[in-house]
Amino acid sequence: MSGLFITFEGTEGCGKSTQIEALSVHLKKSGHNVSIYREPGGTDIGETIRTILQSPSNLGKISPITELLLFTACRAELSDQLIKPALKRGEIVICDRFYDSTYVYQGIGRSLDKSIIEQLKNMAVGPLKPDLTFVLDLDAELGLQRARSRQSGELDRIESESLSFFEQIRQGYLDLAKSEPNRFCVLDASQSIKAIEALIWQEVQGRFFK
Amino acid sequence: MSGLFITFEGTEGCGKSTQIEALSVHLKKSGHNVSIYREPGGTDIGETIRTILQSPSNLGKISPITELLLFTACRAELSDQLIKPALKRGEIVICDRFYDSTYVYQGIGRSLDKSIIEQLKNMAVGPLKPDLTFVLDLDAELGLQRARSRQSGELDRIESESLSFFEQIRQGYLDLAKSEPNRFCVLDASQSIKAIEALIWQEVQGRFFK
Repeated sequence: MSGLFITFEGTEGCGKSTQIEALSVHLKKSGHNVSIYREPGGTDIGETIRTILQSPSNLGKISPITELLLFTACRAELSDQLIKPALKRGEIVICDRFYDSTYVYQGIGRSLDKSIIEQLKNMAVGPLKPDLTFVLDLDAELGLQRARSRQSGELDRIESESLSFFEQIRQGYLDLAKSEPNRFCVLDASQSIKAIEALIWQEVQGRFFK
Repeated sequence: MSGLFITFEGTEGCGKSTQIEALSVHLKKSGHNVSIYREPGGTDIGETIRTILQSPSNLGKISPITELLLFTACRAELSDQLIKPALKRGEIVICDRFYDSTYVYQGIGRSLDKSIIEQLKNMAVGPLKPDLTFVLDLDAELGLQRARSRQSGELDRIESESLSFFEQIRQGYLDLAKSEPNRFCVLDASQSIKAIEALIWQEVQGRFFK
């Protein structure tokens, strides 16, 4: 028996956390075992690396290749220690970001070589691949406004990047979704939370629990 | 003007730190600007990762590929932020471990694929290569005794590995030195500190300051 691996992607402020929580409630009510992880993070080591990657004091200081290697190290650890074992136990794993984030944030946003990113992906997770990936698609400016309004203090390192950076990221996700239409489900994230929640639950039921 | 890059390698307890300090004193007395770095570490981010890699509580928990990626991230950061700029300024850089450590500790000790290690090396440092690498060669058992006797508390994660692991590492260094005889200088580290110090200084003077 093998489980089900669902990931959520999108720019800042698109509502991933809220929707992951809502989907998890639906799945648990239907009797499934659900594990939720987030990237970067999820393991003790991953959470330590997360603080390095998101510290405002590191803004502009971390070289793009170091950033890529640290994200990849988090992902290797999360996959080996938590995701693969949970899937083997037949659970449903929901992950807040996975390797698609690297393709767009480091590949497009930082212009890192795609073959390097692909090699690192293979090192980190081997053949592991999400069964379904939701992209919560949002106008970059609106997303940034949302992300900024919910932060009381400093913006984290990623969120203080420029607007044009986020426009590139948004387009990167849309291009990625086009290249693998069977795996991706793109949703308009400017809709109400309840409307998006219903669409997600409908998609998951339709695909896996018919 | 470009500087000079000298690295020190060897198993635990071989006396690297002592000899690096001694060589640095000789070089400074001769009027050179010297920077000393250590791996993993040297930068703020590197030192944070060092604590992850060397924490006894992570013993056996970090997967080999995560370990390799974290060492590589430290190295990329150290090279970009400190070593390359210092060499450009014409300084002499001495580094306590560099990529040869990865070849033996992760490649031989952890049996990781050599082509992955080579790819990561190229990502992390590009064409940067030490001008001279000292291997302080020591019987593994004697080295472990030395390393253990100087620790008051817990052994760190690497030092609590088994003796056979360290025998493999020692042999790995000797094989590496044979493959690049012009770059490597292997010294018998069971000699007195003063004797080794004299041999190192003689080698550096003979190679670079004749």
